[in-house]
Amino acid sequence: MKTYSKNQLQRYPIYLKYLKKLEAEGVKVVSSPMMAKELGYSEEQIRKDLQNVSDRPGRPHKGRDVHVLIETLESFLGYRTSTKAVMIGAGHLGAALMNYPNFEEMGLSIVAAFDTDPAKIGAEVRGKAIYSMSDFETLWPHLDAEIAIICVPAEESQKVVDLAIKAGAKGIWNFAPNHINVPKSVSLVTTNLASSLAVLSHSLNVKK
Amino acid sequence: MKTYSKNQLQRYPIYLKYLKKLEAEGVKVVSSPMMAKELGYSEEQIRKDLQNVSDRPGRPHKGRDVHVLIETLESFLGYRTSTKAVMIGAGHLGAALMNYPNFEEMGLSIVAAFDTDPAKIGAEVRGKAIYSMSDFETLWPHLDAEIAIICVPAEESQKVVDLAIKAGAKGIWNFAPNHINVPKSVSLVTTNLASSLAVLSHSLNVKK
Repeated sequence: MKTYSKNQLQRYPIYLKYLKKLEAEGVKVVSSPMMAKELGYSEEQIRKDLQNVSDRPGRPHKGRDVHVLIETLESFLGYRTSTKAVMIGAGHLGAALMNYPNFEEMGLSIVAAFDTDPAKIGAEVRGKAIYSMSDFETLWPHLDAEIAIICVPAEESQKVVDLAIKAGAKGIWNFAPNHINVPKSVSLVTTNLASSLAVLSHSLNVKK
Repeated sequence: MKTYSKNQLQRYPIYLKYLKKLEAEGVKVVSSPMMAKELGYSEEQIRKDLQNVSDRPGRPHKGRDVHVLIETLESFLGYRTSTKAVMIGAGHLGAALMNYPNFEEMGLSIVAAFDTDPAKIGAEVRGKAIYSMSDFETLWPHLDAEIAIICVPAEESQKVVDLAIKAGAKGIWNFAPNHINVPKSVSLVTTNLASSLAVLSHSLNVKK
């Protein structure tokens, strides 16, 4: 089985976005040097990344068919199958992510939300109900979801993650700004805004 | 001058969040093994990371003062100085980030937003005005901002980034899902939700 590094996996959606832009502009064929120049990665890296998801090697000096490459990447990234997720925490960030139109084209469907705030429970975001957190265990089996997206404050995050995993969540996408622990059988990805800001602030200071 | 890797910089806010939790629980002293056990990094890595921001070495078998370490990390991360940013794109995600309460404790102050949607222009998010994108160049010099946060669709992102840099932005935090180009003098950090999802989906499939 092929293996993929985290950095490599993170590049594929960026390639795909670029290829879709090319396709919209009517471009039929793309080469690694062309992609390297536009995206700021090395030619070698792009060639290797594309080779790793494609059955066919790129033809030197001929490039790759843009449409075929889009299909290959969409299929590899799971954009052509639907994965269901629930949102835990329907505050500003949780609701914004439920409203994010791009998730659907990525094959991610947020089917319901849970919150502890009585003012939110019973409301809807983009047609999806916000349920009470106290009904989570009862409702989870009916939602057919694999992923729990965590948009609660740091103090609550480990508790709701434990609850989601106990109910059967196989994947956790954590937006809370603290470290959380999950068993090895569960997939965890963290989008930590504080960590991104730390990199940006440091870079700004170095350049001053 | 000390150098820091991107991964290392990303860990500091996670250490800080954990230390603040300890402090709130009344814990006065912390050791690297204790942090390693809770946060899932190696003792050696934690020791090295803390050494890199601290003048004083940790005392073996004695640990570090929690409060002093919090102050050291907050100061290193710039949480004790204020950095001003503008939001470009006040849609769901942009508005959610403007409402994100944690940015203030991180020293990041979003002072204004810009949008092209007439329905949004003139409104406020958390007391901050949403201005017309066509007034960006005129208003920027008065805002005293260093950072532009990009929450516009992929098709618009490079255009508004170019505009922000031309106006004087030194740092770009890009939430748009495509690659953007910036000159070397400008700091760029990307929070790409598609990339995070790619890592999560792949991990879920591998474990199936």
